[in-house]
Amino acid sequence: MPQTAPTIPPVRDFSAGLRPEALSVPESGIVEVYNYGNGRQGLIPMWSGESDIATPAFICDAATRALAAGETFYTHQGGIPELREAIARYMTRVYRALPGGAPFGPERFFVTVGGMQALELAMRMIAGAGDEVIVPTPAWPNFAAAIGVNGAYARQVPMTLDGAGRADARWQLDLAKLEAAVNGRTRCIIINSPSNPLGWTATGEEIATLLDIARRRNLWIVADEIYGRLVYTPERAPSFHDVMAVDDKILFVQTLSKNWAMTGWRLGWLEAPPQLGEVIENLIQYSTSGVPVFAQRAAITALDQGEALIAHQLARITLSRDILCKALAAAGRVQFARPPGAFYLFCRIAGEPDTRALCMRLVDEAGIGLAPGSAFGEGGRDFVRICFARAPDQVAEAARRLASWLNKR
Amino acid sequence: MPQTAPTIPPVRDFSAGLRPEALSVPESGIVEVYNYGNGRQGLIPMWSGESDIATPAFICDAATRALAAGETFYTHQGGIPELREAIARYMTRVYRALPGGAPFGPERFFVTVGGMQALELAMRMIAGAGDEVIVPTPAWPNFAAAIGVNGAYARQVPMTLDGAGRADARWQLDLAKLEAAVNGRTRCIIINSPSNPLGWTATGEEIATLLDIARRRNLWIVADEIYGRLVYTPERAPSFHDVMAVDDKILFVQTLSKNWAMTGWRLGWLEAPPQLGEVIENLIQYSTSGVPVFAQRAAITALDQGEALIAHQLARITLSRDILCKALAAAGRVQFARPPGAFYLFCRIAGEPDTRALCMRLVDEAGIGLAPGSAFGEGGRDFVRICFARAPDQVAEAARRLASWLNKR
Repeated sequence: MPQTAPTIPPVRDFSAGLRPEALSVPESGIVEVYNYGNGRQGLIPMWSGESDIATPAFICDAATRALAAGETFYTHQGGIPELREAIARYMTRVYRALPGGAPFGPERFFVTVGGMQALELAMRMIAGAGDEVIVPTPAWPNFAAAIGVNGAYARQVPMTLDGAGRADARWQLDLAKLEAAVNGRTRCIIINSPSNPLGWTATGEEIATLLDIARRRNLWIVADEIYGRLVYTPERAPSFHDVMAVDDKILFVQTLSKNWAMTGWRLGWLEAPPQLGEVIENLIQYSTSGVPVFAQRAAITALDQGEALIAHQLARITLSRDILCKALAAAGRVQFARPPGAFYLFCRIAGEPDTRALCMRLVDEAGIGLAPGSAFGEGGRDFVRICFARAPDQVAEAARRLASWLNKR
Repeated sequence: MPQTAPTIPPVRDFSAGLRPEALSVPESGIVEVYNYGNGRQGLIPMWSGESDIATPAFICDAATRALAAGETFYTHQGGIPELREAIARYMTRVYRALPGGAPFGPERFFVTVGGMQALELAMRMIAGAGDEVIVPTPAWPNFAAAIGVNGAYARQVPMTLDGAGRADARWQLDLAKLEAAVNGRTRCIIINSPSNPLGWTATGEEIATLLDIARRRNLWIVADEIYGRLVYTPERAPSFHDVMAVDDKILFVQTLSKNWAMTGWRLGWLEAPPQLGEVIENLIQYSTSGVPVFAQRAAITALDQGEALIAHQLARITLSRDILCKALAAAGRVQFARPPGAFYLFCRIAGEPDTRALCMRLVDEAGIGLAPGSAFGEGGRDFVRICFARAPDQVAEAARRLASWLNKR
């Protein structure tokens, strides 16, 4: 039989025939700076969206025990029943009940490979070729990428920094502008509140209006409320859970990553109408086939016993936020809204419009690793994102380095 | 602001507006029987594609050590460098070298959430709306599902059981028929050798011919060689690695699941031309964002120190295969090809054409859990799949139960 090919395509042609959706997916602008600066001696890394706290032992131990007990086999696509029950318990504790007073049941929750897979599954179900999804920006770049990889279009609605330079500056989402962006192809609005990278936290009134728009225009809402516990005054941020009916078309993206310092575990959940359970479990079956049982055991421990950890993290980021805001306000040249939620400061440095280049220079010249605002879509181009979920003394040192660099230029 | 919706869609309408690709994904026919019989007292479960051996402690301990060392943060999308190096070492040991003599380098290997995500990434890159992918069947149902969820069409090429009823029966893939199935929309051929569910193992000559077809027709090959070490005579099955050039368009799907008894860990890898690295890492970023570092440490241990485990598993499934084949040949009414690879027996029971119903009855009446052949596509409808990667005495008991059930009817 013939074993020699007549012609072999040259190496450079490998991607020539690949699907345009796959090729269109951009490298994250955050990853680019990370790759540039990662491993530099003495650098303070504030580019990633994660705390510097490793997962505490009481959570890790649950995984270790499960491994020792032989929990290493295939399992339920939607998550083990015990974890789905634990999520329902947690949600009932924090969000009380579904409208009408029903407690949250496990059938609403589907365990995923991080919040990212929850988002990806939501987009798989909602948006494909010819569809549009509305994303207020600046936003986590993975929203637009998850939309684009399915062949849909992310229609950005740029938010504005009102009162820039003043102490009461606030990011604003213009809801009339958002509704004006709806057209016949629109399928969904993604709302991330509290927001990465802005810290913007929708009021209860804004959330009710967004739901009203979605109802009137027959759109899905994908609510990314992963920072809902990490707010600086009330116990939690306003949520679509507060105003929704059980029949509303809302999918919630959630993660163990931030509240419980478990970014590397890749554990999250999608909350959805239980009627979609079979579709969701099938999509999981044919993409990742579930999440390790031993990791799910750790998640149960985190949800059931992690309140002190959340309180500890919140105390730490409160201190770090105040240190950073005070130092940057004093430095001058820096504009920002003091974030009411999440653990990012999104700030504009006067005279530095090219923040991709700025972030590279700050790696080299100031020993700090920031994320360029250009990575976060329209309205973010001349900003940088600083993740302050680090030890307060490190954040203070980073603020000193940035202020000193600003003063020299 | 308005908080009351004018009309709320009824509950049954939730899936009405979802993407057709997402809705088209079928429930696995294996899962259906599993859900029917799972947890039955005394049932011998042989429906899933996994060994009954839990992951050995020497592998689990590596994960536990990594957890204790705080390896719980975000990491490289394509896998930690140490694991990619370990995969390259393993591949060099088993497959010697790439054509031209170059050893396998880590830049060819991308760590994934099981072999399933490797397959899903391959399909994302290759096949979308309007495209076709050729799949010899009976086949693992996840091939067709991963194709369909991207909007592409799985064109099945049914294989045949030649010499049915004879001791030298063999599954045959008609390569002329396969090539005749290529048309202008065809983008890829999926070859799973050794095969789940058939055990069919392509000869070196067949693999060379398949590569020749792919080259001449400008198609990708997706080679699922995850059972390549689990063969009953030579050290490993023939591989596309034996005949390929570095410029061939071949993607390999691999997993830690079978060789190292790690199904529940969700660990695998995609082997691809390194030129596709950025595309693959972006697709991982926007779907799962990588694999836990502590699990990757366990994978390194498995690859570096797992040869005795593979030998142990192989000795066990050799014994189990021989027990099962002997018992079923003696029982009469059962036709099969003695599998040269993998750990499945795919057999036809005379007089039982509806194997979905048969599998349900065998749960109730014989206390054994089998997978219906209808789950595996064209050519599988009147077969059942028996996974014999279990303790030989359990397999013997299952064979007794099946033979006894057959004799009663």
